[in-house]
Amino acid sequence: MNTIKSYIAQNKERFLNELFDLIKIPSISADSSYKNDVLKTAEIIKESLEKAGCDTVEVCQTEGYPIVYGEKIIDKELPTVLVYGHYDVQPPDPIDLWTSPPFEPVIKKTDKHPEGAIFARGACDDKGQLFMHVKALEFMTANNQLPCNVKFMIEGEEEVGSKSLGTFVKNNQARLANDVILISDTGMIANDTPSITTGIRGLSYVEVEVTGPNRDLHSGLYGGAVANPINILTKMIASLHDENNHITIPGFYDKVEELSREERDEMAKAPFSLEAYQNALAIESVYGEKGYTTNERNSIRPTLDVNGIWGGYIGEGAKTVIPSKAYAKISMRLVPNQDWAEITTLFKSHFESIAPKGVKVEVKPHHGGNGYVTPLNSIGYQAASKAYAETFGKTPIPQRSGGSIPIVALFEEELKSKTILMGFGLDSDAIHSPNEHFGVWNYLKGIETIPYFYKHFTELSK
Amino acid sequence: MNTIKSYIAQNKERFLNELFDLIKIPSISADSSYKNDVLKTAEIIKESLEKAGCDTVEVCQTEGYPIVYGEKIIDKELPTVLVYGHYDVQPPDPIDLWTSPPFEPVIKKTDKHPEGAIFARGACDDKGQLFMHVKALEFMTANNQLPCNVKFMIEGEEEVGSKSLGTFVKNNQARLANDVILISDTGMIANDTPSITTGIRGLSYVEVEVTGPNRDLHSGLYGGAVANPINILTKMIASLHDENNHITIPGFYDKVEELSREERDEMAKAPFSLEAYQNALAIESVYGEKGYTTNERNSIRPTLDVNGIWGGYIGEGAKTVIPSKAYAKISMRLVPNQDWAEITTLFKSHFESIAPKGVKVEVKPHHGGNGYVTPLNSIGYQAASKAYAETFGKTPIPQRSGGSIPIVALFEEELKSKTILMGFGLDSDAIHSPNEHFGVWNYLKGIETIPYFYKHFTELSK
Repeated sequence: MNTIKSYIAQNKERFLNELFDLIKIPSISADSSYKNDVLKTAEIIKESLEKAGCDTVEVCQTEGYPIVYGEKIIDKELPTVLVYGHYDVQPPDPIDLWTSPPFEPVIKKTDKHPEGAIFARGACDDKGQLFMHVKALEFMTANNQLPCNVKFMIEGEEEVGSKSLGTFVKNNQARLANDVILISDTGMIANDTPSITTGIRGLSYVEVEVTGPNRDLHSGLYGGAVANPINILTKMIASLHDENNHITIPGFYDKVEELSREERDEMAKAPFSLEAYQNALAIESVYGEKGYTTNERNSIRPTLDVNGIWGGYIGEGAKTVIPSKAYAKISMRLVPNQDWAEITTLFKSHFESIAPKGVKVEVKPHHGGNGYVTPLNSIGYQAASKAYAETFGKTPIPQRSGGSIPIVALFEEELKSKTILMGFGLDSDAIHSPNEHFGVWNYLKGIETIPYFYKHFTELSK
Repeated sequence: MNTIKSYIAQNKERFLNELFDLIKIPSISADSSYKNDVLKTAEIIKESLEKAGCDTVEVCQTEGYPIVYGEKIIDKELPTVLVYGHYDVQPPDPIDLWTSPPFEPVIKKTDKHPEGAIFARGACDDKGQLFMHVKALEFMTANNQLPCNVKFMIEGEEEVGSKSLGTFVKNNQARLANDVILISDTGMIANDTPSITTGIRGLSYVEVEVTGPNRDLHSGLYGGAVANPINILTKMIASLHDENNHITIPGFYDKVEELSREERDEMAKAPFSLEAYQNALAIESVYGEKGYTTNERNSIRPTLDVNGIWGGYIGEGAKTVIPSKAYAKISMRLVPNQDWAEITTLFKSHFESIAPKGVKVEVKPHHGGNGYVTPLNSIGYQAASKAYAETFGKTPIPQRSGGSIPIVALFEEELKSKTILMGFGLDSDAIHSPNEHFGVWNYLKGIETIPYFYKHFTELSK
């Protein structure tokens, strides 16, 4: 394995250029007007897997966007690693806050990335992190260093709820059979503080619609006399948290895993500066559930956030209107043992029950998934930990993340294998935000680290 | 005056076509991309006043849109009527709810307008109602029946707060000197139940901006740990009403005029069916301040409504974002004795005071004006009442309206004269909404009634 560093040094420019070509296609799955771009991206993924050394690669059609499946089986007696990733990206809105066009990647230096970072939508989430695995495979096959079998399953609907992936996994259990699932779609603490995500939160995403009068009304003639859907929506949403920022939906916390004092003390050892956190976000104070620290609030505790709200006149100037309808997109992050389908049902019945007479409420579930925890004593975790230790020179810290990869819980259910979340991005990389970026150093470090995972996992599996 | 009916019969088609030409120009003052259309409309108003018989007409430049001033002085010893109106219109949004294009007027029959109504933005508010006065003047001058002097002051910024009108009035007191101000920018109860608006509410319109983190964040990584500006905005707005739907801003009700039981009993005599009201809006129940009836809630009581709200991702599909900012447009309708500037200050300091740590709040006042009450014993009111009685065959009912014409209180202050609100539209005409319309019958009835006002006002002034 002593050639990986030199292989990267020789191919660095090409690795970057190939990633740029992938990023340039706006594969926005949430917006149907980008359909052709999403489909084109699937084809590029297919070609890149073939070039990297996969024996068979197929663009598998689904009811939604296709799943690219590829494999290289060297010996059926050896372990098999299944790599999962996604080639779709978040919408770039709000566009005007980007300092360079979201689909024209450029390398710019930042405080945290003195060697430069790639600025573009998808640079980190997940095209950059996914492509590390393609380039690591290329190295291993080109240098005859692949120690086990490998399968790739790359989907195009992760940012819209992985609608087709569940069916695909259920219908292809034999083909997808594996010993461990490897995903790079999370982050680590800092470039000098490697960490591995050992828990992710579940998700329930819903859209709500409040309808008042059957048409927009003049707020002078009707104001104060009929229920204004916006005022009602704000009241209903506000009531979802109590004065301690606990969520008020009956039954919401019933299955929440309560961590022991010891476990919480262990978590509290992770390096964290509240001042630096607040300064980075330009906020005077953090805000959240009473009785929990910031790191607990966004990892081991469930939350409820409005991701979008709209209603009435939102143009320039003033319009004195009471709109007929108001809307919000609301997501709940869930912790292990909470079932997303059950939580969605609890939300729906509670939200409908608190609507006052005079309005009608509709709750439309978007998508969701359950949380997941990786056991620290699993072979997969041990292999990942050793891999980071070799390339970073430090044992990585196990850390629960607040994010969600809804499909991970389903993988374990259907494929009976553990998932290892080896992420190389940073929280400050602004994924899902304007000016998303991914450190060039991080991209190359990922490519360097992944082959060690294969090596250690194969050895530990013996 | 026995020829007004026949004059209308002879000129009906032309009266409609001329109004259509005026309506076809999208004079949307709130949207600066329509600037040329607004300016063109001022020119058309000027020409129409000249044709109707004004001796001098001038398009007076202001810092905003021009004010069209016209006059016909027949004898300085006779009384002077000052007609006020506005040639700008509300934005037509949401466009997709219009059943015909908003700036292509068509006549369609409705239940309340069996003789047809003109469907278009501005058909009623205020191009249709304003043009009645132009056509009434045309009749009086063409038939030598103008009994007094007349002045017209038609502005182009009413829908955005009449920013330039105050200065214009202050700087032109001598030129605008009058004995009564006549405005048709309100409605009446029904075609068989004429009414005159004797009170209008004041207005304070503000825009609020809540800023949390300095950039949009991933709701998984930061959810629950930082203040989400949308959640905070909903909490802040929700807290502006208590459980009885009283407004919670300290000092808000201090100067509110409380009506006596007798006055409220008198109001309650106006014909009103709660069932018909609810059915017309397709709502199960009305909603408003405890202790007051529907007609009281939207006339003698102050109110607070959100007219627009936005923040986060509002496109197709799902985006798990905590936005940096969330916004709302909020208007308060005020009753006599409440001062709009004072209420705006109270709102601003209260709203800023309830912001939790972790967000910054900005309140931007848009515009406003005070409420107004017309004395029933004034010559102007008596003249209007007699005019309606002659053409409708019924004495009109005096009625307080929930709407606002912020400039009316200023007229009294600067010009020392009373304003008479002779409206001919109906509440169901959907002004400020999609499918605004104005009954053809109402348009012609207005033209028929106005000359009688001039006659009676001149006689009562002797």
